[in-house]
Amino acid sequence: MRILKASDQPSIKRSVDSGTNEQRATVKTIIESVRKGGDQALKAYSFKFDGVSLENISVTEEEKMEAYKKFNEQNLSVIREAAANIRLFHEKQLRTSWITTDENGTILGQKVTPLDSVGLYVPGGTAAYPSSVLMNVIPAKVAGVKRIVITSPPDKKTGKLPPAVLVAAQEAGAEEIYKVGGAQAIAALAYGTETIAPVDKITGPGNIYVALAKREVFGDVDIDMIAGPSEIAILADDTAKPNEVAADLLSQAEHDRLSCCVLVTPSEALAATVASEVEKQLALLPRQEIARESIENFGAIYVTNSMEEAVQTINLLAPEHLEIITEHAMSLVGQIRHAGAIFIGRYSPEPVGDYFAGPNHVLPTNGTARFSSPLNVEDFQKKSSIVYYSEKALKDHGGKIAAFARLEGLEAHARAIEARLKE
Amino acid sequence: MRILKASDQPSIKRSVDSGTNEQRATVKTIIESVRKGGDQALKAYSFKFDGVSLENISVTEEEKMEAYKKFNEQNLSVIREAAANIRLFHEKQLRTSWITTDENGTILGQKVTPLDSVGLYVPGGTAAYPSSVLMNVIPAKVAGVKRIVITSPPDKKTGKLPPAVLVAAQEAGAEEIYKVGGAQAIAALAYGTETIAPVDKITGPGNIYVALAKREVFGDVDIDMIAGPSEIAILADDTAKPNEVAADLLSQAEHDRLSCCVLVTPSEALAATVASEVEKQLALLPRQEIARESIENFGAIYVTNSMEEAVQTINLLAPEHLEIITEHAMSLVGQIRHAGAIFIGRYSPEPVGDYFAGPNHVLPTNGTARFSSPLNVEDFQKKSSIVYYSEKALKDHGGKIAAFARLEGLEAHARAIEARLKE
Repeated sequence: MRILKASDQPSIKRSVDSGTNEQRATVKTIIESVRKGGDQALKAYSFKFDGVSLENISVTEEEKMEAYKKFNEQNLSVIREAAANIRLFHEKQLRTSWITTDENGTILGQKVTPLDSVGLYVPGGTAAYPSSVLMNVIPAKVAGVKRIVITSPPDKKTGKLPPAVLVAAQEAGAEEIYKVGGAQAIAALAYGTETIAPVDKITGPGNIYVALAKREVFGDVDIDMIAGPSEIAILADDTAKPNEVAADLLSQAEHDRLSCCVLVTPSEALAATVASEVEKQLALLPRQEIARESIENFGAIYVTNSMEEAVQTINLLAPEHLEIITEHAMSLVGQIRHAGAIFIGRYSPEPVGDYFAGPNHVLPTNGTARFSSPLNVEDFQKKSSIVYYSEKALKDHGGKIAAFARLEGLEAHARAIEARLKE
Repeated sequence: MRILKASDQPSIKRSVDSGTNEQRATVKTIIESVRKGGDQALKAYSFKFDGVSLENISVTEEEKMEAYKKFNEQNLSVIREAAANIRLFHEKQLRTSWITTDENGTILGQKVTPLDSVGLYVPGGTAAYPSSVLMNVIPAKVAGVKRIVITSPPDKKTGKLPPAVLVAAQEAGAEEIYKVGGAQAIAALAYGTETIAPVDKITGPGNIYVALAKREVFGDVDIDMIAGPSEIAILADDTAKPNEVAADLLSQAEHDRLSCCVLVTPSEALAATVASEVEKQLALLPRQEIARESIENFGAIYVTNSMEEAVQTINLLAPEHLEIITEHAMSLVGQIRHAGAIFIGRYSPEPVGDYFAGPNHVLPTNGTARFSSPLNVEDFQKKSSIVYYSEKALKDHGGKIAAFARLEGLEAHARAIEARLKE
């Protein structure tokens, strides 16, 4: 793993895939075909891309029950405990409508309403993560979304969805599940087909075609962020255990060849031992090949002159995941301006948040923590302003409102006010 | 104004301009030029598009002071009172960091942090609205954003910004102001030039070039919504005064030839009298030509069979502005699922909210109230998850977390947990 001076390296290399022109054109074609062809187009694309001949797009009740039978009971209890933790944490985010009242009769406020319907895309293949299902469905459920739809590509051999995904969906509270993947699934969620009614918002990760399709339908429906490769930055000093720091770096590196794993430390000694620990542990990993590519291309250890410079480096990076493993870790939290999630202290390695603790694992990547937040219950609610003026309030303030309208040259605005003041 | 049966007209015609391929290409070129050429490119485009030869891109202290001298004192006091109301309402939206603690030592929560910097685009020409400046700057200020930048095209003749915009900016608390407009201004805000440091988020309305530029830089920085033409829907019954309803429809129609103004009512009598009132009032409006085009192309009165059907029609429309002028207006609020802002009762005509009451006038258009909210203080804050596990917490739950990781085939995740459990 490269060891660099932080001062020499102001920007950190990350991978962003915004798609080729060809990919964009393919996605546009797929979306148009699904808008025109509906279910038939979905089936044709499933055959073409997933090699599956679907009779039924919907997952049946039988398939849902079967998934439980195939599922290990111990794993089910872990999923249930994780789901309960996630639910508990997200319930704390729930906003409620509020008003302010004034003696002159004015009532102002915000009405908070859940979205009507939400669609979650679940990637297929090796990346079928039940934790993603929990992290996307539970906040929508807590927000009060009535219709939660899941769509995911079926397995090429069985034509079915993985039991873990089906079990997680049901545990989280999503009952409407379709066996469709790719850009065609996004098109169906956005515009609807005979079988799949359209939704108001689409969330969930996916490959480049799914990402481009989400970008394309954005505006007609809402989307969550376009997720980039996973990232971790670790802020550590001499009190950190090198083997633990190395293990944490590798836990992100194994996700993706493009994952970005960084250690920032004022300790040259820690830098050196972590680098050799990473080598040692890498050799023993099942996903060694992926992790090694990520570490070699996007991994780095930055040595700083001070803890202050280390914190600055972290804020420049604005990482998706940040671990602080220093002597007084909690006292540094206030200085972190940009990070998706902050894991504090030695006993909070990042996988604690991936699966179990409760906060969402859908986090802003690629420096967007500068302006974005983890997936939230509020992402599934929207607000409407409430404005109630009494007769007295309008009489007291109407003249000023009309004057402001005229200052902007909007006479009809002024007259709408004055129509009430004439009597 | 057309009178239609709501049941015959499920979808309502609205105008969406997503730009021509030529416009998109122009915007791409402008952005690239500004990224390469910096200030020089900005000045060249200002000369080309605005006909202004700028020596200095920044608004000087002298120009700021001069704006106050040119500004009417009565209008200043209205702007100050409006700003105070807007501030008061938005302060109620301010989120604070929060945590939960558990007896086993676990601390979970959300750290709320203001964005570092925000840029507000203010359109030029006839549409220089000081109210827009207040509505965009004040929420950012309340959120705690340290650097708030305004950029707006200068007047062709004077090479300066309108006094109303400069006064509103200073009253709202924005001191860094630039005389640049168009897609080049958006590029400068997103990527920076020698004079203008880049920002993290860009808000504010603009013409199609500004809208396309915002869409283009989205991802590198955050943006607010892409605003469409203004809309109003009025839900009224026989208790509403036809002249007031007509005046309210026209107050939106005068904004833009593409504005969408709709009355939904179960009363045929009201429909007929409002239609003739609209004609009568139209003839007397200074912006008659614009308003007439909007009413003729995008205006409609929908007559329903019941109040229930009227509410359904409103929810289908998901209007930017909704007025409820019915006998028991307040009792209908709970049934409204989708609306940017809800104005309740006869004395709350929409301009009350445009200028003065306090809630934001930047609202979701074109049906996006299904999933979007008014501009909020929260749009200028972001959250970071906080995860602190104690040794005991990790010992109690680490085994389950490792099991979940292995269920997803992520061995390095499991090992990061187990590295702490070994001792």
